[in-house]
Amino acid sequence: MDAIAERLLKPEAAPERTPVPPFDLVIFGAGGDLALRKLFPALAQRNEEGVLPEESRIVGIVRKQDDVEGIPKEIAAKLAAAGLPQDRIAAFRRRLTMVLLDAVKPETYGALKEALGESQRVRSFYLSTPPDLFIPICENLAHSGILTPTSRVILEKPLGRDLASARAINDAVARILPESRTYRIDHYLGKETVQNLLVLRFANTLFERSWSSRDIDNVQITVAETVGLESRAGYYDKAGHLRDMVQNHVLQLLCLFAIEPPNQLEADAVRDEKVRVLKALRPIVGPDVQRHTVRGQYGPGVIDGQRVKGYAEELGHVSGTETFVAIRCELDTWRWAGVPIYLRTGKRMAQRYSEIAVTFKPVPHSIFGRAPGCEELYANRLIIRLQPNDGVQLQLMMKVPGSGKLKVVPRQLDLRYETAFDVRTPDAYERLLTDVIRGDQTLFMRRDEVEQAWAWIDPILAGWQEYYPQPHRYAAGSWGPSQAIGLIEREGRSWADPEFGE
Amino acid sequence: MDAIAERLLKPEAAPERTPVPPFDLVIFGAGGDLALRKLFPALAQRNEEGVLPEESRIVGIVRKQDDVEGIPKEIAAKLAAAGLPQDRIAAFRRRLTMVLLDAVKPETYGALKEALGESQRVRSFYLSTPPDLFIPICENLAHSGILTPTSRVILEKPLGRDLASARAINDAVARILPESRTYRIDHYLGKETVQNLLVLRFANTLFERSWSSRDIDNVQITVAETVGLESRAGYYDKAGHLRDMVQNHVLQLLCLFAIEPPNQLEADAVRDEKVRVLKALRPIVGPDVQRHTVRGQYGPGVIDGQRVKGYAEELGHVSGTETFVAIRCELDTWRWAGVPIYLRTGKRMAQRYSEIAVTFKPVPHSIFGRAPGCEELYANRLIIRLQPNDGVQLQLMMKVPGSGKLKVVPRQLDLRYETAFDVRTPDAYERLLTDVIRGDQTLFMRRDEVEQAWAWIDPILAGWQEYYPQPHRYAAGSWGPSQAIGLIEREGRSWADPEFGE
Repeated sequence: MDAIAERLLKPEAAPERTPVPPFDLVIFGAGGDLALRKLFPALAQRNEEGVLPEESRIVGIVRKQDDVEGIPKEIAAKLAAAGLPQDRIAAFRRRLTMVLLDAVKPETYGALKEALGESQRVRSFYLSTPPDLFIPICENLAHSGILTPTSRVILEKPLGRDLASARAINDAVARILPESRTYRIDHYLGKETVQNLLVLRFANTLFERSWSSRDIDNVQITVAETVGLESRAGYYDKAGHLRDMVQNHVLQLLCLFAIEPPNQLEADAVRDEKVRVLKALRPIVGPDVQRHTVRGQYGPGVIDGQRVKGYAEELGHVSGTETFVAIRCELDTWRWAGVPIYLRTGKRMAQRYSEIAVTFKPVPHSIFGRAPGCEELYANRLIIRLQPNDGVQLQLMMKVPGSGKLKVVPRQLDLRYETAFDVRTPDAYERLLTDVIRGDQTLFMRRDEVEQAWAWIDPILAGWQEYYPQPHRYAAGSWGPSQAIGLIEREGRSWADPEFGE
Repeated sequence: MDAIAERLLKPEAAPERTPVPPFDLVIFGAGGDLALRKLFPALAQRNEEGVLPEESRIVGIVRKQDDVEGIPKEIAAKLAAAGLPQDRIAAFRRRLTMVLLDAVKPETYGALKEALGESQRVRSFYLSTPPDLFIPICENLAHSGILTPTSRVILEKPLGRDLASARAINDAVARILPESRTYRIDHYLGKETVQNLLVLRFANTLFERSWSSRDIDNVQITVAETVGLESRAGYYDKAGHLRDMVQNHVLQLLCLFAIEPPNQLEADAVRDEKVRVLKALRPIVGPDVQRHTVRGQYGPGVIDGQRVKGYAEELGHVSGTETFVAIRCELDTWRWAGVPIYLRTGKRMAQRYSEIAVTFKPVPHSIFGRAPGCEELYANRLIIRLQPNDGVQLQLMMKVPGSGKLKVVPRQLDLRYETAFDVRTPDAYERLLTDVIRGDQTLFMRRDEVEQAWAWIDPILAGWQEYYPQPHRYAAGSWGPSQAIGLIEREGRSWADPEFGE
C-alpha cells in the first residue's frame, strides 16, 4: 500500500498509460487475505493511474451479510492509511459492489447475475478461493448464465496437489471455457525482475552469448523466507514446501532463466518454450531423491535477534511436512547438458532473499600466477536479485588500486531498480490483473505447463514417501539443514553467499 | 598532492606495503614542471607509505645556483599545502640533495659523482628533460664513471619526432646501457584503470569470451582535454597532437585493449604481445589520410562558460599544427579483422574525459517486435573510464518498471573505483617510479614498441604534409571539427555520447 502513497508524492513521474478496455471483474474470496492485501490495493493503484475506464466495475463475492458493508470499509481504511485522499477513495468505492453468495449453492448466484446485469463488457472471474471451489464455481457460473462467451476465469494457486488433481481441475474448467480464456496466475511472473529476465537475455547480446554449458558452471535459484507458518497452517501442513513453492514459483524462475529464444514475445511462443524446459528436466525418481534432494523442517531458533518457535510447536503437533527444499537438477538439452542447477527454498531462513545466481566458468589459465593477492581468480557471477533490492549485479575480478604488487579481488558492477529508474516498482498483481483484462496470457501458466511441472514433482513426492519420509531438522534463522550444504559442496561448489553484494 | 592529504586522513586504510630495495634516484630537470608537480610528490607519498628504505637518496639536478636552495623549499611548500606535517616534510627533505650541473658539460658532472659517492645502491637516472639532452646525459654519465653496471635510465617522452630520430636516441642509449636497464616511461601505463584493463580481460571470462570481431562492432578510444596550449607552446607547436598524444598514450591504450593473452604477466611477455598489435595496425598511407584521419585546430570558443582564445591567438601567430586528431584504424589480425577502431583526442574539447568504449554487436533478432518502447534495442556497450570517475560501466537493455506495455531502455551497471575500493587511487608516477627501483619493466615501453608506433605514425605525418596540410577548424569547447563526426557517421556509427554514464 506504500505504493499508492509513493505514487501520490510524485504524480509527475507517471509514464504514459494506456487504459484497459471496459470490464467487469468479479473477485471470489473478496474477504480473504489475498484480496484485501493485494488485489483491491492493486486495482486502486491502477485506478489512480487512470487505467480503469469509468464504467468498469469490481464485484466482490462475500459469504457473510456483515461483509457486504464491512469489506468496502476495510478496503477504504487501508487506502486511507496509505495516504489516498478521501475523494479518491470514494471514487474507487463507487466501482465496488459486494454480492452475498455461497459458491457451492447455485441458487445463490442470482444476486451476482443481477449485479452484472446486461453489460456487454468482458467479464473476468478471479477465483481467490481454495482449489476445491474452482470446479463448482465454474459450473455454477456457466449454469446460471453468468459466464458469457468472452468471459475469463483466473485461477489462484494451488492448482492441485499432484498431476492427477491438477488434471481434474483443468479438465473441469476446460469443459466450461477454453484455454484461451483461462488464466492460471503465478504472481512471481508479475514481478519486475522476473519479467526483466526475458529482457536481460533477449535484448542484450553479452549474456545470451554466454548462456550455455560452454560458459556457465552452475546456476542457483534461491527463494528464502524468514516467515514461519503464518495463517495458512491447515493448507501448508498438508501441502508442504515442495508443492507450495517449487512446483510453481521456483520452476517458473527456472523456465524463464533457461528457455530458448522465442520467436516473439507472444503468449504461446513464450509458453511453448517454457514447456520445453520443463520437459527437459531430468526426472528424479525413487531412491535418487536421497541424493538429489534435501527436505528440511525448521526447529526453534533466532531470527533478527528474536527467538522463534519450531514448526511443530507453531503447528501444535509433530509433522513430517517439509518447510525447506533443496534440489540439484539438470536439464537434458543441447544448451544446458552438464550444468547443475541448484534450487533452494525454505521458511524461517536467515534472511528474506530471492535471486538467481549464475556462476560462469573460471578463466582457463591465470596469467597472474601465484603472486600474493592473485592466488584465486573467482569465477564471474551474474546475480539477478528478486528481493530485497531488486536489480542486477555482475561480479568481476578487478585490480585493487595501489602502487605495490598487483592484487586482484572480486567487485560488483551494480544496477538497482529503485535507483536506476525514477519510477516505483509496481506490485506483481497490478500488472497481472490488467493483463487479464487486456487478454494477454503471456505471464500466465498454460495448462500443459502446470501439468508438466507436476509431472516432474510427482516422482519426487513419491520418492520421499518411500525413501525420505522424515525431513532433516534445521534451526530457524539458518540456511537450512547441513545436508543442503553437502548437496552442493560435495560437487566442489558453494551456495552463493547471501551477504554478497549487500 | 591531495593524494597525500587523503592518505593522512585514513592511515588505517593502508594496505600491506613491500619496501623497495635501497636506491639512489637522480632526477635531471628537478626544477621542471613534471618533477615538481608529479615526481617529488609521488616520492613523498611513497615515503609516507614506508616503501622507501632509510638510506635511499633522491638527487635533483638543477641548472641555477638559486635552485639548490630554492627547489627543496618549493617542494616543502607543496607538501605543507597538502597537509603533510613539518616533521614528515623534514624527513623527506633529508633524502634530497640538489646538485648544480649543466647536462651538456661533462666537466660539471664531478659534483654528481661526489654526491653519489661510493654507494653500492642501484642508481636510477630520470631524464625529465628535452629529448635532445638524452644522448649527452647518457654519454656524460658513462664517461664520468657515474653509470654503474646496474644503473637504470628513465626516458620521458617525447622519444623522438619520427622513426629516424627515435632510432637515433635508442641507438645512442643502447651504446651506453642495455635494453634491460632502459625505462621508457608513458605515464598512461601507470594509471589504475589502464592496468585494470589487463585484469578486466584476463581475470574474467565474461568479457574475454566476447573480445573479438565476432561480438564487437566497434571500439572507440577518446582522450579529450579541456586545456589549451599551456606552457609548452614551443615544443607543442613543433610536435603537434599526433606526436604528443597518439604515438604514445593512445596507441598504448589500443595495445592493452587489443593484445592476445600473454602467457604470464611478465615484462617481455606483455610487451611482445603489444608489439604484435602495433605491427598489425593497417598502415594509413598517402591520400588515405584524407579518408581515415581528421586533423583539427581549435579556434576561439567557450569552455565551462568561459571565453577562451583560439590556438593561433594563444600561440601569437598562425600555425598549421593540429590540436585534434581522429583516426579510423583497423588491426589485421584473426581476432580483430573487420572491427573499426576509432581514435579521438584533442585539446580544448567540451569535456575532460578519457575512456575506451566497446560497442558490442546488436541482438540478431528482436523478440520484442516494434511495440512502442521496444523499437530500438541499443547494442550493449562496455565503457572503461580513465577519467574522470574512473571505473567500469556496462550498458544493458532493461525493462522499465511498470504495469503497462513492455518498454525497454538502456541502463548501466556501474563500478566506480573510488566507491568500490576504500583506498585512494595512486598517481601513475607513484607506481612507475617504484617499478623502476624494483626493476620491473612491464609498464615501460620497449625499444621495438616505440619504434613500431613511429613506423605507423610516420606515413600519416607524411600523408598530411602532402595531402592534408591544413587542419580543420573547430570551436574550443566542441567535440572537434565536424569531419570527425563524419568519419564515424558515414559508417552508420556514432561517437559514444560523453554525457553517457555521468
